[in-house]
Amino acid sequence: MSFNTFGHLFRFTSFGESHGAAIGCVVDGCPPRIPVTAEEIQVFLDKRRPGQSRFTTQRQEPDAVKILSGVFTDEATGQQVTTGTPIMLLIENVDQRSKDYSEIKDKYRPGHAGFAYDVKYGINDYRGGGRSSARETAARVAAGAIARKIVPGLVVRGALVQMGPHKIDRSRWDWAEVDKNPFFCPDPVQAKFYEEYLDGVRKSGSSIGAVIEIVAEGVPSGLGAPIYAKLDGDIAGALMGINAVKGVEIGDGFAVAELSGEDNADEMRMGNDGKPLFLSNHAGGVLGGISTGQAIVARFAVKPTSSILTPRKTVDRYGTNTELFTKGRHDPCVGIRAVPIGEAMVACVIADHYLMHRGQVGESLPWPFEKR
Amino acid sequence: MSFNTFGHLFRFTSFGESHGAAIGCVVDGCPPRIPVTAEEIQVFLDKRRPGQSRFTTQRQEPDAVKILSGVFTDEATGQQVTTGTPIMLLIENVDQRSKDYSEIKDKYRPGHAGFAYDVKYGINDYRGGGRSSARETAARVAAGAIARKIVPGLVVRGALVQMGPHKIDRSRWDWAEVDKNPFFCPDPVQAKFYEEYLDGVRKSGSSIGAVIEIVAEGVPSGLGAPIYAKLDGDIAGALMGINAVKGVEIGDGFAVAELSGEDNADEMRMGNDGKPLFLSNHAGGVLGGISTGQAIVARFAVKPTSSILTPRKTVDRYGTNTELFTKGRHDPCVGIRAVPIGEAMVACVIADHYLMHRGQVGESLPWPFEKR
Amino acid sequence: MSFNTFGHLFRFTSFGESHGAAIGCVVDGCPPRIPVTAEEIQVFLDKRRPGQSRFTTQRQEPDAVKILSGVFTDEATGQQVTTGTPIMLLIENVDQRSKDYSEIKDKYRPGHAGFAYDVKYGINDYRGGGRSSARETAARVAAGAIARKIVPGLVVRGALVQMGPHKIDRSRWDWAEVDKNPFFCPDPVQAKFYEEYLDGVRKSGSSIGAVIEIVAEGVPSGLGAPIYAKLDGDIAGALMGINAVKGVEIGDGFAVAELSGEDNADEMRMGNDGKPLFLSNHAGGVLGGISTGQAIVARFAVKPTSSILTPRKTVDRYGTNTELFTKGRHDPCVGIRAVPIGEAMVACVIADHYLMHRGQVGESLPWPFEKR
Amino acid sequence: MSFNTFGHLFRFTSFGESHGAAIGCVVDGCPPRIPVTAEEIQVFLDKRRPGQSRFTTQRQEPDAVKILSGVFTDEATGQQVTTGTPIMLLIENVDQRSKDYSEIKDKYRPGHAGFAYDVKYGINDYRGGGRSSARETAARVAAGAIARKIVPGLVVRGALVQMGPHKIDRSRWDWAEVDKNPFFCPDPVQAKFYEEYLDGVRKSGSSIGAVIEIVAEGVPSGLGAPIYAKLDGDIAGALMGINAVKGVEIGDGFAVAELSGEDNADEMRMGNDGKPLFLSNHAGGVLGGISTGQAIVARFAVKPTSSILTPRKTVDRYGTNTELFTKGRHDPCVGIRAVPIGEAMVACVIADHYLMHRGQVGESLPWPFEKR
Repeated sequence: MSFNTFGHLFRFTSFGESHGAAIGCVVDGCPPRIPVTAEEIQVFLDKRRPGQSRFTTQRQEPDAVKILSGVFTDEATGQQVTTGTPIMLLIENVDQRSKDYSEIKDKYRPGHAGFAYDVKYGINDYRGGGRSSARETAARVAAGAIARKIVPGLVVRGALVQMGPHKIDRSRWDWAEVDKNPFFCPDPVQAKFYEEYLDGVRKSGSSIGAVIEIVAEGVPSGLGAPIYAKLDGDIAGALMGINAVKGVEIGDGFAVAELSGEDNADEMRMGNDGKPLFLSNHAGGVLGGISTGQAIVARFAVKPTSSILTPRKTVDRYGTNTELFTKGRHDPCVGIRAVPIGEAMVACVIADHYLMHRGQVGESLPWPFEKR
Repeated sequence: MSFNTFGHLFRFTSFGESHGAAIGCVVDGCPPRIPVTAEEIQVFLDKRRPGQSRFTTQRQEPDAVKILSGVFTDEATGQQVTTGTPIMLLIENVDQRSKDYSEIKDKYRPGHAGFAYDVKYGINDYRGGGRSSARETAARVAAGAIARKIVPGLVVRGALVQMGPHKIDRSRWDWAEVDKNPFFCPDPVQAKFYEEYLDGVRKSGSSIGAVIEIVAEGVPSGLGAPIYAKLDGDIAGALMGINAVKGVEIGDGFAVAELSGEDNADEMRMGNDGKPLFLSNHAGGVLGGISTGQAIVARFAVKPTSSILTPRKTVDRYGTNTELFTKGRHDPCVGIRAVPIGEAMVACVIADHYLMHRGQVGESLPWPFEKR
Repeated sequence: MSFNTFGHLFRFTSFGESHGAAIGCVVDGCPPRIPVTAEEIQVFLDKRRPGQSRFTTQRQEPDAVKILSGVFTDEATGQQVTTGTPIMLLIENVDQRSKDYSEIKDKYRPGHAGFAYDVKYGINDYRGGGRSSARETAARVAAGAIARKIVPGLVVRGALVQMGPHKIDRSRWDWAEVDKNPFFCPDPVQAKFYEEYLDGVRKSGSSIGAVIEIVAEGVPSGLGAPIYAKLDGDIAGALMGINAVKGVEIGDGFAVAELSGEDNADEMRMGNDGKPLFLSNHAGGVLGGISTGQAIVARFAVKPTSSILTPRKTVDRYGTNTELFTKGRHDPCVGIRAVPIGEAMVACVIADHYLMHRGQVGESLPWPFEKR
Repeated sequence: MSFNTFGHLFRFTSFGESHGAAIGCVVDGCPPRIPVTAEEIQVFLDKRRPGQSRFTTQRQEPDAVKILSGVFTDEATGQQVTTGTPIMLLIENVDQRSKDYSEIKDKYRPGHAGFAYDVKYGINDYRGGGRSSARETAARVAAGAIARKIVPGLVVRGALVQMGPHKIDRSRWDWAEVDKNPFFCPDPVQAKFYEEYLDGVRKSGSSIGAVIEIVAEGVPSGLGAPIYAKLDGDIAGALMGINAVKGVEIGDGFAVAELSGEDNADEMRMGNDGKPLFLSNHAGGVLGGISTGQAIVARFAVKPTSSILTPRKTVDRYGTNTELFTKGRHDPCVGIRAVPIGEAMVACVIADHYLMHRGQVGESLPWPFEKR
């Protein structure tokens, strides 16, 4: 079975191959009367778009999104708003360079999905990676742009925090820096270093991995559907489902293994605003699968792209041993462009759970409770 | 909304609170004519059962499972087999020690789900953690015992590979050791050390985190439903959904960030048996969200339990600042008992995808393909 | 694949066979803080319970329901309320008369599910119909009792409106009569007649069909999730899914085929209360799959039970031609006991859509709209 | 919440409004390597297409479908086949006559979905009925064209069997006639009469209801997922979900109310081919929610369109009493064009259950069973 639908109540179904006619998605379950324009969605698509620096693939795709359904003019405001019906987002493929596929048509790139698709389906649109291409993630970014508008006050931001062995210095973290360098790096010093470092990787025809961090602020407390659609479980599934991701962390992540119960406890006090105040955030904003009102912090590791210039041993579809290297356009560090994708997926999960919570619980009882 | 159902085609719905009358689950979608007995399920429940060594909570629960529906005697063999209808697995709670809850009834344990449940639902069965208690995972282990029988040749095993800062030595990995120590540790030398180490933790009333590794062998290639129910995405969601888990890795996990494309490539050759042979397994058995036939390798990090003897700052349900420490039975390292739970969840995901693949694709085309 | 879960947000998963240890269901997604007791649920189960008159099967089943999870005492009120976690409802089977099954074990009752289960699963718990027995519907009635409490002001009632060729006289419809005769018949004159009529059917060892009407009042307008989870589509699926049902109508049903557009139009006026007033209800309370605020009216036809004393030609599991008639306890008109089941299913669909609507739309914009 | 996805394993998500840029759907879960062309799909769209006779709306829509994804050339055969990935079917709207909407923009057509959409969503694309327009059903017909190819040997055909009070004479049923008249009527005599009859309806600016019958032959036995995704329950939900449908029957339908158990029993004999032979088909091919191998027979009643020339009392969006009649293009009997839609929905349900059955059960045990 094939599942190309993401989400429970806020959900989207994506379609399209890298070198087909178009990609896109149908967003379903969006509440009505939310202002949405193609321009707003385009902002996020432009962040993910290839060919913007020498550090991403040189494929030229405008990734221009069209809204084909689900919006209408609100008479009262004159704005284009959602109507509660499915929103069709279409992105036509433009730069399907008619290249020679004879090399990769039959040979499997080690570490690439081509072999797995062949084994599963007995057929694979190999052109540019077909359905398994990261190109599909443009649909996710578009859906995420709508998701961001559903939860009032929600801000979801991402940043690259490690490239190869080189982590950023968190004491220099500045969100304003993220859009000033081609790496979405919040540490301006390390961003400078990455430029040189990645140039080296690129010129050698190699590739390198990365770690991305997503921070969601303004998440209402109480979101999450235990036991099997926990907020963190759904975030983990969503991030691991991004192309090339091999690890996911919430809050302190793998570091918790080394923590004692005392160190791991996020102590609480009452804030002056009558809201609970956490003195730390080891939990990353989620307890028991439910949001606590703290910032949600998630990280994911992206492997190096399998498209490299060094020949690797492989086999072809017909069972013959051979070798392969990949010429042409590719990302030396696909992790970079995973930043807006990770943001989008986290936004979609939160929007989905926001609607689910509203469905089951409605208005939560005011906390703290009144004593009787 | 509350989602207490796990899985797509092979699925189970769990119910029950730590100190209620019973816990259990309804397993739905299991193929018919599979031999299943309560005794077989009990074997796995016994691995997870508390009170078996001084390193787990001293609550005495036999965790005796009863099968209330979905099985019948196969006339041809005289065996009890599944009928394709829902299998109801009931585990009665026995040791609901009538203890004094006045301390934890109103105060939130830092790092525990109590606050989140209160904020979400406006009410919480606080006794022993209620629905958020790890006791619910017995239902998962029971469902997993059935899942294991669905995929012919599937073997899913787990092991503790790190406790606190102390990792095992992988060169000493011996699966036979796992059942010989109370830690499910495959390294006998480190297991010895853990005994002493965890005694220290326990005696000081503290707790500590751990890392668990699950290895699934005999997984047919081709399983996984791209794009949004990828095999690794579903495994990540399932493992992150286990109580206290904060990080999940597939294959090399976070280490891929430091790898080059050359190092990360799992090169291929044709095996003598006409099957593809991978020369390494950085991918952990999954490419493009689809199983390759290699062993599936997943790891997850478990935080230290929040039940500790050292007082921590907290608030109560009524918004008053206070302190709390937890007396009584608890696990100094909940990660230990997470081993059979992780196994069960991975087995359930694989069984689910096995049925989904059979549904969509039916018989896969034989690979390698014939050239024309 | 087996789907034993009903509903989207408010949902329940049922289990159990007619002559197994128990039947029941897990209700998931119920909002928290709703008062629920076993006694309240029992009221509805008692309506469906067999053996209450000579017109239903003489099997003696107390159908006593136990709530095993999902409820807790609300400190503020002292009441037992839902907690938002799964509610496990267990009904033990008591009267599994150890009868001789040798006759029906191998032979298929014409019109009964036994053949279909065998063909599908290759095995069937034939005792008393196993999973396909109407006994399973007790679980639906129990779930429905909870569903009724979710939508404020909702009243769902059912009545038998036809038995064999004998329809009631609608001019004599009196809801108060429904509970005064063993047929749930709102027409006291026809109820008197049915007594005699069904005695004849019963004594001849035959059986007869019936038509049931369900009316739901107090349904908020705006419920229904177009296009493929329309309120009426979901009601139709739910009612057709009741054992022995072969036809479903909403509003005027099949009679619309003969109506002109003029006759079918439910004209509208503004009511004195500022709400829309419909001058008729051909639509049965649903337009475009969405509730309009009018009463929802649905009907369904129930076939005669296949258990009759007259021998019928059939085959056995091994492919041999034979004959069969059914001795022992059975319902001469299963349609009677379908009344509380139909009520329960309609209540569940409405509760489900109430939560779904609240999830997607939240608070609807007040209607009529303000002109600008 | 909005559910615009139909089906479980074989599923499609539709989008689009009557007068928006385009309509269409994404078909997901289709098995790989099935030959599919736009031309094949077009055949079925052409049957549903408006403007083909004076008995359907004169809107001119070519309904030309494009396949934007999910297909690829099979090297072995040179054919275009499915790849197992989502198939995007796009139909651009052409004849969005820029008409004057001022009349229907604010006033509700009695019996039309406009009021319900307004009440639910607070906004409605009123142009041509927007999302609630029967235009959306083109997407279902396109998806159905693919569904038909999934189950080997499946033939799904439909026919109009009643228009107004005028039923066909079943003794004259000839499938070959269905495509020879503009009514999909299998009775050539009655078809002749309908011509005259419907001309009268059309000229008077009125409309009339109809009953459609769908027959599916070649359905494998064993399909259906009890208890809550029964084959007949899913068919009923699918047919009731078609625009303007108010009643659904399987097999004998409402007539079963008048049948005795003896009359209703479909007696069985072994056929010469070693397969079971039913001596009648009151059940319509489904027992216990599972297909028996007999033809599946379903009927549904379609109400008259609400677009009529006679003024009707209504209200507008701002709560003012008014009157309305509908000028312009409309179908005097929308039931006619419901024939290919009903076929498509039944084909989709059967294809879906075919995959689900293959998923859960795999290969069924050969029936009749061997005696031991």
